[in-house]
Amino acid sequence: MSTVLGTLDHVLLMAPGPSPVAPNVLQAMSLPTLGHLDPDCIKVMDALQDQLRAVCKTENAVTFPISGTGSAGMETSFVNLIEPGDAVLVVNNGVFSSRMVEVASRLGAEVDVVESPWGTPVKIEDVKAQLAKKHYKILAVVHAETSTGVNNPVAEIGELVKGSDTLYLVDSVAGLGGVDVQVDNWGIDAFYSGSQKCLSVPPGLAPASFSEAAMDAMSKRKNKVPNWYLDVSLIRKYWEGSPRVYHHTAPINMYYGLHQALDNLLTEGLDAAFARHKAMHQRLVDGLSDMGFSLYVKEGAAPQVNLFVPPAGVDANALRGCLREKHKIEVAGGLGALAGKVLRVGVMGEGARPEAIDKLLTAIRTCISK
Amino acid sequence: MSTVLGTLDHVLLMAPGPSPVAPNVLQAMSLPTLGHLDPDCIKVMDALQDQLRAVCKTENAVTFPISGTGSAGMETSFVNLIEPGDAVLVVNNGVFSSRMVEVASRLGAEVDVVESPWGTPVKIEDVKAQLAKKHYKILAVVHAETSTGVNNPVAEIGELVKGSDTLYLVDSVAGLGGVDVQVDNWGIDAFYSGSQKCLSVPPGLAPASFSEAAMDAMSKRKNKVPNWYLDVSLIRKYWEGSPRVYHHTAPINMYYGLHQALDNLLTEGLDAAFARHKAMHQRLVDGLSDMGFSLYVKEGAAPQVNLFVPPAGVDANALRGCLREKHKIEVAGGLGALAGKVLRVGVMGEGARPEAIDKLLTAIRTCISK
Repeated sequence: MSTVLGTLDHVLLMAPGPSPVAPNVLQAMSLPTLGHLDPDCIKVMDALQDQLRAVCKTENAVTFPISGTGSAGMETSFVNLIEPGDAVLVVNNGVFSSRMVEVASRLGAEVDVVESPWGTPVKIEDVKAQLAKKHYKILAVVHAETSTGVNNPVAEIGELVKGSDTLYLVDSVAGLGGVDVQVDNWGIDAFYSGSQKCLSVPPGLAPASFSEAAMDAMSKRKNKVPNWYLDVSLIRKYWEGSPRVYHHTAPINMYYGLHQALDNLLTEGLDAAFARHKAMHQRLVDGLSDMGFSLYVKEGAAPQVNLFVPPAGVDANALRGCLREKHKIEVAGGLGALAGKVLRVGVMGEGARPEAIDKLLTAIRTCISK
Repeated sequence: MSTVLGTLDHVLLMAPGPSPVAPNVLQAMSLPTLGHLDPDCIKVMDALQDQLRAVCKTENAVTFPISGTGSAGMETSFVNLIEPGDAVLVVNNGVFSSRMVEVASRLGAEVDVVESPWGTPVKIEDVKAQLAKKHYKILAVVHAETSTGVNNPVAEIGELVKGSDTLYLVDSVAGLGGVDVQVDNWGIDAFYSGSQKCLSVPPGLAPASFSEAAMDAMSKRKNKVPNWYLDVSLIRKYWEGSPRVYHHTAPINMYYGLHQALDNLLTEGLDAAFARHKAMHQRLVDGLSDMGFSLYVKEGAAPQVNLFVPPAGVDANALRGCLREKHKIEVAGGLGALAGKVLRVGVMGEGARPEAIDKLLTAIRTCISK
């Protein structure tokens, strides 16, 4: 027998996720596995919770990584809060907010949407107008749209439901660690992210946090959560209980990686990391502008997710192929109506470094100069 | 800042999961991350599917690891097959079959149970009698009960529903790789396992397989699966589609580990691995019998999950504490009514080796001789 592992390319990950992983994070993941109730495992879990609270800027007791990818974070947030017939308002301007509509609808929610065109941030007044028309149990927004390169104004939207009994649900899968997130100050009740974007951990965990109001809403459910695996009321007993109550076996090697990556981030400092993402975004925009590329998003452009329209004569898909085949660099293509028309470039975590940006710029220059 | 990673003990994992992980598997997990649509990622996925079909002895097209732990495998199997009001029969003789009852009930199934006392395999005639009374959409059995140390007669139970339209659902979280599993020959329609037991991969993946009949039942659902993250009809498009359709971001570093571990297993040969588990179980039983321990299970004892009643004067919990604190060895305690009364010892994957068994026996001898 033999594996394919020796034949794999080492690819520079410059798509908007997964992002490059630091060597010490990969190394952490290969530490010996521990049992899910071992005192040393609990030491890792406690440290992780403290780190996540710091990165999410929250005091929420219920703050831990869900054992699944970012989409499991979305599923967890909705399935714990929705009962059939509940009214949910989704701010919809991209693939991931459309996914929210699908997830919530499958759970029996009555979902309304406030839409804005792909590539433009939602207008606060549109959300406000819809909230005035109807009472919603949940207002849901995607912070950073991986599909369009827009950061929605999450803080401002949150102001609209502060003090009300509408729960504020925010997806920052592609934001956390690269741009500011303030779970408590922004009044976020249900929050989730993903490990493989600006946190620069391999995919597989979804850091999440729930406010007292969210936990209160869960405790008042008429029926049990129709998803045992993602039932937050059970999972919290494992993360916080004294003694810890076994729920499912902790994916401990992924915890090691997340723990190391969060340490890297907090050691650098959040503000320094955000400034680095911004500076590297600018370095990329400047370099590509020189080659005739233009940024697709005109307002609210996310530093960590960048959509570029190529100059005339440059085929986006052919360029992606050249980058992957000749230079072992991954960038992404456009989704939906943008397929074939744009490049999507991540400036995320360990990819938001001068060496990575410059390597990408040089490779693009070579590919298009032929 | 600093991490707790440097302070963690290296523990010999002799509880019934997680089990020790081979060095080449840990090393595989630290290979550079790849994008979820990268051709090299797809190469790993294709290889994984072939390996899983070989280990599960199935030709099922829909055979892949679910992105979550073994419990996510359980959730996936039930949520894709159950619609509210469906009749489900669960063979209940342990913690994990009780969990099946809970999972299926939350999804709106009408659940009946055939019970047998903990520590004894279910009686075929009891299942047969219940099947004669009522028509069930699903018959669900846990192959290897981690809580009791019993392997249920999965092949024989499957005969009862062969040729009928009742779907046969089998949990072999604690069996696959350590004892024989024959998904096709045994007529299993929905199957799942876990990475962290006899496959000796860190926790985080649930290998699963679904028959044509199961896929057909899913395609005839009246309503969409109320769980977007675990919807098999969507996930299969990512694993089999041409082109691959993105669903959620693949936990690729976990795939590396599973791929390497399955290669280790298939290189040894399944029959050799099963024989090794059996021989190591006997080595453990012989060694502990000499010290006055007795096997809790009298009939249908699983070689990979071993419950021992300590001799008079030996406190099970104190012994566990001594093993972990003085010898850095983890074994588990009893669950439920067996709490404090038994030791649960795993003989799983890389733990089913003479060095591991002998190290444990020596440590137990030292602990109880004081």
